Amino acid sequence: MSSQFIANAGYKEKVTESFNRQEVMKTINVSILAIRPGEIELEFPYQSNLTQQHGFIHAGIVSTVLDSACGYAAFSLMPEGAAVLTIEFKINFLSPAKGERFKAVAKVKKTGKNITVTEGELFSYSERGNQKLVATMAGTIMSVYDREGVKN
Amino acid sequence: MSSQFIANAGYKEKVTESFNRQEVMKTINVSILAIRPGEIELEFPYQSNLTQQHGFIHAGIVSTVLDSACGYAAFSLMPEGAAVLTIEFKINFLSPAKGERFKAVAKVKKTGKNITVTEGELFSYSERGNQKLVATMAGTIMSVYDREGVKN
Amino acid sequence: MSSQFIANAGYKEKVTESFNRQEVMKTINVSILAIRPGEIELEFPYQSNLTQQHGFIHAGIVSTVLDSACGYAAFSLMPEGAAVLTIEFKINFLSPAKGERFKAVAKVKKTGKNITVTEGELFSYSERGNQKLVATMAGTIMSVYDREGVKN
Amino acid sequence: MSSQFIANAGYKEKVTESFNRQEVMKTINVSILAIRPGEIELEFPYQSNLTQQHGFIHAGIVSTVLDSACGYAAFSLMPEGAAVLTIEFKINFLSPAKGERFKAVAKVKKTGKNITVTEGELFSYSERGNQKLVATMAGTIMSVYDREGVKN
Repeated sequence: MSSQFIANAGYKEKVTESFNRQEVMKTINVSILAIRPGEIELEFPYQSNLTQQHGFIHAGIVSTVLDSACGYAAFSLMPEGAAVLTIEFKINFLSPAKGERFKAVAKVKKTGKNITVTEGELFSYSERGNQKLVATMAGTIMSVYDREGVKN
Repeated sequence: MSSQFIANAGYKEKVTESFNRQEVMKTINVSILAIRPGEIELEFPYQSNLTQQHGFIHAGIVSTVLDSACGYAAFSLMPEGAAVLTIEFKINFLSPAKGERFKAVAKVKKTGKNITVTEGELFSYSERGNQKLVATMAGTIMSVYDREGVKN
Repeated sequence: MSSQFIANAGYKEKVTESFNRQEVMKTINVSILAIRPGEIELEFPYQSNLTQQHGFIHAGIVSTVLDSACGYAAFSLMPEGAAVLTIEFKINFLSPAKGERFKAVAKVKKTGKNITVTEGELFSYSERGNQKLVATMAGTIMSVYDREGVKN
Repeated sequence: MSSQFIANAGYKEKVTESFNRQEVMKTINVSILAIRPGEIELEFPYQSNLTQQHGFIHAGIVSTVLDSACGYAAFSLMPEGAAVLTIEFKINFLSPAKGERFKAVAKVKKTGKNITVTEGELFSYSERGNQKLVATMAGTIMSVYDREGVKN
């Protein structure tokens, strides 16, 4: 699968290294499926300790994984020395987050020196592998240069 | 503290009972500080297993607590037999989620038979008790009647 | 061009009829390029009376056309007797709305009895026909049944 | 009425001068009611050429006025030489935009060197002066320095 963006040397390593420092990704058991310039895929399994009152994965956990996916899609295109922070996102929930496992796919729509606009989708998979669109995110990401406490 | 909305009998009990069934609230160690008609306050402590790459609480965890706050603010005004589902939300991140503990405050802006519009704010507190606004959410909540699998 | 949705009889006529009653569409000189089940394309020319302080089309006018596009994409799939109202939308502005003419493309992502989730994109075209993505919208649309004052 | 922000010299003049160059404000007949540091109030009358299919003011026109209000609330706090551009906004529609006239009130929630977060509300007024909340906006505004074509 190709991408419209040109890769910086070492973009996979820097995304992976930063991702591995997100402790919450371990708590949710998220793993990286694919990294391409401006695109990322993440996966996580159903866990009963992440559910809302009906036994579905909580909307906020869906948001957590999609936000990381959007952030790292943006980060993959950022120059050396830039750190990534989410300014804001908006998320629509299309169907309940139930299933055996979930995949988040995020892509950069537009990138700039300071601001990157991203889109993400989260899919659920049943035991039989049936795919369903659970949520769509639009996120705005900022490149931060030389800010104390947020080194890459 | 008063509210512009009129209480249904038993609204505190039904909110508390539903909140207690959200397993993810236990994982994040969220507790209810206050419930009023159309308003709720939730609190949780800093936990290193919920952080992003700079050691702040992940934006998605902030979203998780604010989404529950908005949902239960809406749920507190819903009639008997209605279940609550988030249609969508938008969240802005104003400062890093660092601190000793965090408080989410959510209020209903407009309520209707099917749709409730809510607003929430999340504050951080340092050890010395200094308060800072971390994030603002605008969320749209749906009242669901008689849908299989989503009884209150 | 095909669509994932099945057409109701007369969907083009009902969309066109409702669109023609939107007086603001005449003020902005918007015309319908295409209607398919769950999809619509609208077009309008640059007009200096719709500009912001730098001479670009105002972000709100971009929003107006995209909102109508999203609403009518949703309306095209609604049953007889349903009226369409926008609950909320979120829009990102990717590049200045400058050019000779503009095209809005909106599609339904998920449709339900009460709630339809839509996505739209607005493109600018220079005199030479160069296309640029100006804005992306995610909108939530409600089907309204039997409400006074909002008959289709 | 006071504000939490400190005024730059000449902030009213620069906001007014920029506002007066927005041609679309004349088309919608918007006038400035008040400017304070980080806050603005705008007003406009009902006009039948700005309506949607039920005769209400179109959601996009509501967005246009709220977006200008949010942008100028942000601009009032920006340093000399900064231009204002909307990155994105989200708007919820709480009741139909019907009435004799409308007022938009916007305030800055957080301001920074590059990013300002704003909130706005639009109210309708009947002939008898009854006020109703029509829409709420959350908008993210960027300060642009030295970009060609967007001088203040």
